[in-house]
Amino acid sequence: MSQTPDSAVHPAPSDAVRAHIAAHRSAFLDDLAAWLRIPSVSAQPERSGDVRRSADWLSEKLTRTGFTTVEVWETDGAPAVFAEWPSGLPDAPTVLVYGHHDVQPAAREDGWHTEPFEPTVIDGRMYGRGAADDKGQVLFHTLGVQAHLAATGRTAPAVNLKLLVEGEEESGSPHFRALVEQHADRLAADLAIVSDTGMWSETTPTVCTGMRGVADCEIDFYGPDQDIHSGSFGGAVPNPATVAGRIVAALHDDTERVAIPGFYDGVTELSEAERALIAELPFDEAAWLTTAKSHGTLGEAGHSTLERVWARPTAEVNGIGGGYQGPGGKTIVPASAHLKLSFRLVAGQDPAHIETAVRGWLAGLVPAGIRYEIAFGAPTRPCLTPLDHPALKAVAGAMSRAFDGAKVRYTREGGSGPAADLQDVLGAPVLFLGISVPSDGWHAPNEKIELDLLMKGVETTAYLWSDLPAALRADAPGA
Amino acid sequence: MSQTPDSAVHPAPSDAVRAHIAAHRSAFLDDLAAWLRIPSVSAQPERSGDVRRSADWLSEKLTRTGFTTVEVWETDGAPAVFAEWPSGLPDAPTVLVYGHHDVQPAAREDGWHTEPFEPTVIDGRMYGRGAADDKGQVLFHTLGVQAHLAATGRTAPAVNLKLLVEGEEESGSPHFRALVEQHADRLAADLAIVSDTGMWSETTPTVCTGMRGVADCEIDFYGPDQDIHSGSFGGAVPNPATVAGRIVAALHDDTERVAIPGFYDGVTELSEAERALIAELPFDEAAWLTTAKSHGTLGEAGHSTLERVWARPTAEVNGIGGGYQGPGGKTIVPASAHLKLSFRLVAGQDPAHIETAVRGWLAGLVPAGIRYEIAFGAPTRPCLTPLDHPALKAVAGAMSRAFDGAKVRYTREGGSGPAADLQDVLGAPVLFLGISVPSDGWHAPNEKIELDLLMKGVETTAYLWSDLPAALRADAPGA
Repeated sequence: MSQTPDSAVHPAPSDAVRAHIAAHRSAFLDDLAAWLRIPSVSAQPERSGDVRRSADWLSEKLTRTGFTTVEVWETDGAPAVFAEWPSGLPDAPTVLVYGHHDVQPAAREDGWHTEPFEPTVIDGRMYGRGAADDKGQVLFHTLGVQAHLAATGRTAPAVNLKLLVEGEEESGSPHFRALVEQHADRLAADLAIVSDTGMWSETTPTVCTGMRGVADCEIDFYGPDQDIHSGSFGGAVPNPATVAGRIVAALHDDTERVAIPGFYDGVTELSEAERALIAELPFDEAAWLTTAKSHGTLGEAGHSTLERVWARPTAEVNGIGGGYQGPGGKTIVPASAHLKLSFRLVAGQDPAHIETAVRGWLAGLVPAGIRYEIAFGAPTRPCLTPLDHPALKAVAGAMSRAFDGAKVRYTREGGSGPAADLQDVLGAPVLFLGISVPSDGWHAPNEKIELDLLMKGVETTAYLWSDLPAALRADAPGA
Repeated sequence: MSQTPDSAVHPAPSDAVRAHIAAHRSAFLDDLAAWLRIPSVSAQPERSGDVRRSADWLSEKLTRTGFTTVEVWETDGAPAVFAEWPSGLPDAPTVLVYGHHDVQPAAREDGWHTEPFEPTVIDGRMYGRGAADDKGQVLFHTLGVQAHLAATGRTAPAVNLKLLVEGEEESGSPHFRALVEQHADRLAADLAIVSDTGMWSETTPTVCTGMRGVADCEIDFYGPDQDIHSGSFGGAVPNPATVAGRIVAALHDDTERVAIPGFYDGVTELSEAERALIAELPFDEAAWLTTAKSHGTLGEAGHSTLERVWARPTAEVNGIGGGYQGPGGKTIVPASAHLKLSFRLVAGQDPAHIETAVRGWLAGLVPAGIRYEIAFGAPTRPCLTPLDHPALKAVAGAMSRAFDGAKVRYTREGGSGPAADLQDVLGAPVLFLGISVPSDGWHAPNEKIELDLLMKGVETTAYLWSDLPAALRADAPGA
């Protein structure tokens, strides 16, 4: 069943695990569809009731799964769900799984071919907002632990299993760190596993070893007290839309490097070994562009596309607006203009330092006569797993078994999650286990999950909970 | 009655003219209010019926005034109104008065203190969209010619009087040139008088000697086929909102001079004498800023504020938009971004050359991977009256009489109108006669007209039709 050169280092797939998964796949997908129907958009205040319904739905599902403790944890924003299932074994390691139950905004008119909150299966894919980011990847842990029990004959998992599923990840997790600090005792773990990332492709299983952080801000520029006639006054007073454009242009230098002084302070540069691992991946730029739905590459000079999205910090314009945007023309100097910027951060960068740098840079660029306000959201820190951590080998091994012995490679994730807060507060190393693929359309119309891969996620965790105790006791092959 | 040193060169005000105006002021203002209630917004397709109602209302009013021929002229857009009232005198000069009956968009929520289409008189000012731009200034010609007749005892004016009042000026007069070309025989005149400008202030009467032209364009930038995740793809693909910002920044150099190659080709520079006339005006920058509702000046180095708005070409951002502009954040690389730019032009600049220059400049700046589309509206040409034209002296003289002998100075208008098309097609010199003041709020919320100044406009035309025949026969004082 396993044919690649690497298969010898891991046991073969388990027929018992696969039989359990096959028997329960249909009911599992029905459950996922039910959850996806709840539009738990944390960024939209009018959806706060749906975010709560989503938390309640998950609580009920986790209780049905067998978790012995299931609690909805309140925050100053949306609720999180905590669940626990003790192993009962002495010396069992404690694993904390992280995910989120909130989703990005979505509307049919954004370009969806199906209703975003009416999950639809087409050709082995389930389409719906949150299918991959992150409800599908949270939910595979429920069938995964049950398959683990069915195959091992145990009544409780071989690890002390904890789940923390927050409800504000798509809003930048503004209360997550406080939540983790408040419940640090309950969340204590030897290891955190984040299931909110993806892998290289359907045919190249990979484990992610780091996520970028993100800091975002809104800047409002105010010029005239109201829109004024561009004939009467244009050319003689500062125009806030022009200023917004100049700020955008000043974000980067001619080499597409971020030009904000101090922005790169502390950046952990890629080692030559890491660059070589990245260069080994079967990267097809044309295929990547298709996935990116983009028509050209552009980024920091001296770095490959993968390095740019995985390991380099960036400055991005997420939104810009000002003046007249309706049909036809209106010859005005607009009263105001607005920018939404986000900065992806890599290991070694401190969000507080970035905020200070941006504020100082901005202050030096806005001309007299333009008033501005800048507000930062809660940042998400960057995160990086050491390549030599024994748990990383266990995760890769379990994944290789699920993928019939395929060689598992290492990637990073350009997106952001609050993984670094878990590491900071709990002192637990963070690993990533995700089975989403780049074409899944995170944050985009027509988000989907590949159902066969979703089952590989189930299967990987079924093996991992068996293999992890020994792997953590010594750097030995899994049981 | 006239006390200033300059008053000797012009006759005193006419009691007969003033008596006629006083007797008819109230009915005149009722008529203006009735016209302002018609929301003739040419830029909004759903208002096209109102633009037509406005034309019909004016036709009826001109007929009542005594014009012997009144016609609604169709265009490929909104209708214009033409009226004619022959003098009956041999050798009478023919004067064509130009104005427009369409108005800028307006909505209460833009910051209006009264309903924009429910004219309201407060403290001697009538508030309402179009009060100054341009319905009030078109309408003063009706009472003006009647006062001229009442004071002179004539039954027809001393000039062959023609009026052309178009319905698309606020949309850039896209069909005006074709209309003038089509009816060139009917419109033939010795002189065109444009009543769509303003004067220096309530206490400093001035005659405008030129208007800037304007060319405007919309540019759409397209990047990814849809909004994409800035974590997964940010920093490696071109962002259309970033490109839009860079285009905005590239509009000007460090001295605020327009940086588009070829933009200044052919510009008629101010002479030292013209700069001196401008410098003589009682310009108070703080007061000007209050009128501009702005909090600082910024413009082309080497030029004063007045030179910048009157005699220098500009590039202005009227609108910019792209990506997510709703509440909160959305970490995307946006699919598209959009710019609305306008360029004010001065004498010597050719709109066709400007369009070519902008297109070439843009093509050199947009990176691979970003597709763009640019579309220009119909341009309005710049216009300039020679300072030594005898009719200019007649207009200044009539205005001085109306203003009790005050010295009349010369200004220019930073805004744009289709005056240059009249000059081009009809071969008639163009002069400007307007009594609006800078605080009237053209294109802005709370547009208004000063009612006492409106009556000075009436009075000026009453004198002008008497004075003009002699002025044009020789450079002699008016009768």
